[in-house]
Amino acid sequence: MRGNDNTAVLLMHCPDRPGILAVVTEFINQHKGNILYLDQYVNREEGMFFMRVKWQLDEFEIPKDKIAEYFETLIANRFKITFRLYFSHSKPRMAIFVSKMPHCLYDLLARYAAGEWHVEIPIIISNHPDMEEVANRFGIEYHCIPITKENKAEQEAKQLALLKKHKITFCVLARYMQVLSAEFITNYPDRIINIHHSFLPAFAGAKPYHAAHERGVKVIGATSHYVTSDLDAGPIIEQDVTRISHKDTVEELIKKGRDLEKIVLSHAVEKHIERKILAYKNRTVVFQ
Amino acid sequence: MRGNDNTAVLLMHCPDRPGILAVVTEFINQHKGNILYLDQYVNREEGMFFMRVKWQLDEFEIPKDKIAEYFETLIANRFKITFRLYFSHSKPRMAIFVSKMPHCLYDLLARYAAGEWHVEIPIIISNHPDMEEVANRFGIEYHCIPITKENKAEQEAKQLALLKKHKITFCVLARYMQVLSAEFITNYPDRIINIHHSFLPAFAGAKPYHAAHERGVKVIGATSHYVTSDLDAGPIIEQDVTRISHKDTVEELIKKGRDLEKIVLSHAVEKHIERKILAYKNRTVVFQ
Amino acid sequence: MRGNDNTAVLLMHCPDRPGILAVVTEFINQHKGNILYLDQYVNREEGMFFMRVKWQLDEFEIPKDKIAEYFETLIANRFKITFRLYFSHSKPRMAIFVSKMPHCLYDLLARYAAGEWHVEIPIIISNHPDMEEVANRFGIEYHCIPITKENKAEQEAKQLALLKKHKITFCVLARYMQVLSAEFITNYPDRIINIHHSFLPAFAGAKPYHAAHERGVKVIGATSHYVTSDLDAGPIIEQDVTRISHKDTVEELIKKGRDLEKIVLSHAVEKHIERKILAYKNRTVVFQ
Amino acid sequence: MRGNDNTAVLLMHCPDRPGILAVVTEFINQHKGNILYLDQYVNREEGMFFMRVKWQLDEFEIPKDKIAEYFETLIANRFKITFRLYFSHSKPRMAIFVSKMPHCLYDLLARYAAGEWHVEIPIIISNHPDMEEVANRFGIEYHCIPITKENKAEQEAKQLALLKKHKITFCVLARYMQVLSAEFITNYPDRIINIHHSFLPAFAGAKPYHAAHERGVKVIGATSHYVTSDLDAGPIIEQDVTRISHKDTVEELIKKGRDLEKIVLSHAVEKHIERKILAYKNRTVVFQ
Repeated sequence: MRGNDNTAVLLMHCPDRPGILAVVTEFINQHKGNILYLDQYVNREEGMFFMRVKWQLDEFEIPKDKIAEYFETLIANRFKITFRLYFSHSKPRMAIFVSKMPHCLYDLLARYAAGEWHVEIPIIISNHPDMEEVANRFGIEYHCIPITKENKAEQEAKQLALLKKHKITFCVLARYMQVLSAEFITNYPDRIINIHHSFLPAFAGAKPYHAAHERGVKVIGATSHYVTSDLDAGPIIEQDVTRISHKDTVEELIKKGRDLEKIVLSHAVEKHIERKILAYKNRTVVFQ
Repeated sequence: MRGNDNTAVLLMHCPDRPGILAVVTEFINQHKGNILYLDQYVNREEGMFFMRVKWQLDEFEIPKDKIAEYFETLIANRFKITFRLYFSHSKPRMAIFVSKMPHCLYDLLARYAAGEWHVEIPIIISNHPDMEEVANRFGIEYHCIPITKENKAEQEAKQLALLKKHKITFCVLARYMQVLSAEFITNYPDRIINIHHSFLPAFAGAKPYHAAHERGVKVIGATSHYVTSDLDAGPIIEQDVTRISHKDTVEELIKKGRDLEKIVLSHAVEKHIERKILAYKNRTVVFQ
Repeated sequence: MRGNDNTAVLLMHCPDRPGILAVVTEFINQHKGNILYLDQYVNREEGMFFMRVKWQLDEFEIPKDKIAEYFETLIANRFKITFRLYFSHSKPRMAIFVSKMPHCLYDLLARYAAGEWHVEIPIIISNHPDMEEVANRFGIEYHCIPITKENKAEQEAKQLALLKKHKITFCVLARYMQVLSAEFITNYPDRIINIHHSFLPAFAGAKPYHAAHERGVKVIGATSHYVTSDLDAGPIIEQDVTRISHKDTVEELIKKGRDLEKIVLSHAVEKHIERKILAYKNRTVVFQ
Repeated sequence: MRGNDNTAVLLMHCPDRPGILAVVTEFINQHKGNILYLDQYVNREEGMFFMRVKWQLDEFEIPKDKIAEYFETLIANRFKITFRLYFSHSKPRMAIFVSKMPHCLYDLLARYAAGEWHVEIPIIISNHPDMEEVANRFGIEYHCIPITKENKAEQEAKQLALLKKHKITFCVLARYMQVLSAEFITNYPDRIINIHHSFLPAFAGAKPYHAAHERGVKVIGATSHYVTSDLDAGPIIEQDVTRISHKDTVEELIKKGRDLEKIVLSHAVEKHIERKILAYKNRTVVFQ
């Protein structure tokens, strides 16, 4: 989804019913929308239908600002469809939260600077001053907002004010070593992406590489997920692993893990930007 | 290590000290042993030295049945070495424990029948009659010993008698759905290999594929480990994973998992047969 | 697709056109077919639409033996659709060709014996007597038909007669070390599945593991593909790889490769049995 | 190997002979060198012994500038050992060559800026002006030296002069889309690391992603290798692959390939910096 596109993406789910796919595609086709991508999936155990459809708007007969209303009235109400509609002209705005480690931050910024993603990154927020130099290299505003037990509520209020001011639509925790309060999270439901340095649910919580080494696993992993008020337990977006051996020290796990973490996080962010993720009952449907 | 070889394998560990590697290799070289493979590893955090060395015995000047004694007296005592010595003429004898699922069993037996491994498999033990047909195809004795809460001690005694009668040196649990008693396990310390159908420590215990589906992971795994009295918590030998998506039902996870399980288990068994595994402090050193 | 199912699978492709998806699903829905799976894909470079749809026939109003005719008349002609229609009651019949290596053969037969696949395997054909014992274990007819340069045409005629007699619908070359003649292949277009022991197109032809070792690659692979008259150049169905190092000898590559080969081949065979593969312009569309 | 270390690394190979390992380790031990890492490997087909050993120099009795001479005289001559000796105080100096694509460049520079590697990167050389902005972000000299058929010899002379001036010890081609002349290469034998965007030897030469798409492979790869005068045929250091499907267009292969390329290249560079690679007969031994 690019700025010079003129497209819409519909993410939807509803109780499964014969013909639902045809009804939705016909809605687009008959009004001269040209379908570019369509991916659908039926969860038979739960009787739910999920779909992502992207179409060309150039000759679409319904004006952009009326599509949601028309779709709701003509289709969604009848089929009990829950949906979100996105337009290519509306660019997502992303804030990065980081602490002291640069590897994920660099990977995100390098893709951003290279123009790989249809996104704006107006600010980087940190609880430490260390990454300001990196932010400067890419010309992005850096806000150091240190957090202690005592000042947490107040500092999170500052963070939220910044996010509001910059019209941030989603947040990426690029190895941000602070737990967000439940209240903070309610502002961005399924809109905060975290990277955890283990293959969850193994080794949730602090120091997963130490725990992995102690347990003697032969594979380490990284997990990107949406943040919920349950620590490290939100809907998983992407995971990957790499092989290790008895020869690897904790330091070597940390080093090998960095490459996993940055790629897994960036892939999750990319899917989010491309509107390919639908979170449902603490799991994700990741469309192609 | 093959029957027509005439080789010895030494697995050892001891406190690390300069020159330990040279001392051991010199012991072999000066007595005309021809070193075929050597793999060593130093754990610096714990200050421990680990080594596997395999050598040709044809011109070795110390008689086979004296090697352990000489090595103990001349080297091991001085350097506080813990060691095991294996000879190619002594073929490991393996018992397979199985319940109702054939995939791991077939994979083990196919390799055995093809002569890939230097091992004897005289018996298959099960708590169900279902796999007898498979045992018959390969001409291997099958013992059905059903286990209930009430008869467990008595039935395990029967199993142990069979293992003793057949001079079994190690056991492989090829999806055997019974927990062995702590007492049973003491008979085969680091000599019982299990396959668990998850990437441990995630999803230990029963129904890991159901739990993985419920959690919405994007990767499933299998883990082979030595059995200890701590359920699913023994030293890990081998792990592998495969990617899944939201489209996979529990049944599809089970199907995809079968291929992981059988390959991971067979690789672990192979390393064990080749005397490449040294268990130490609930972890394994797997030599090359 | 199981024998106790009552389902149909439609594999189709045609020039892409708005509404094509709705037209086909409506054809099924309006005649009371219950769609179980649907996967579609548009190749935009070539302007082609591909789809696999599977539906429940229990209440379908068009009799089974008329579905193809009705679909052709009412839909396919109008949209220039090329299609194949399969029914769950018609079980595929598979012949295995093998030479001297048992690993792929065992993997296929273990799945077959375990009832994992909706397939019949009435015969195994070989140019050597070695694998007869394996065939006997599974109670399957074994035909040894040795091939030399001189007798090739005549021996292939015997093979074809056997295939015809046993109503074979597709063939699997499970490390069959003979090149089939172009004439033989024309009898089973996109119906002969081979496993090649390299990641094609690298190391086509003989002795790929030797060539891989010589070249010093760090990854080896296996490739399953449909056989065409162009050696090792037919449409690829499935590939996988494994890591190796400088320490691996050719023999170790051969050993590591066996596990790749058998899993890759069995996965390809499974997709074929489940009617999930559509070959188009020397590539495959593999539906989910 | 870090600047605040005081260590030596010996990379060596020689005809295999009993006791060679003990002789070399004894040379280090008896002169009070503390061995930190040792990895050895015997190629039995060729009868060659390879070893990397790293030791602490703090109490080593032979002065640094005499070690090579002593080792040569006392050991290497007798055992026909070919060796290289490296010291931690001597930091490798790396030049990056790049054309228009930033992904590998960013990955190298992010690791460099984060202080992950014991290396200096004084210059970036390109045949295009595009990447100057990236160089500026990291404060590294950028030299744009456009190359045409006509001016190649002369421009390469300029490049070599720059390398000499900056005392460059090895070069990294981070998607540099120019073939280096054989003459240029002779200046840096096994000292120029390239990334090729395919799993070599498949798809050598130009446009490998287009070729991979055309062939319909199910796996794409990337290969890092030392540059020789034979295009894309030098000793392979590292390879990795990722799965693709029929749905992936050439553009998507290019996108997925970028992550492979950058990680594979950076891993190869890291091994080189850590003196873990020994090139021998157009293959590499990569020590641990």
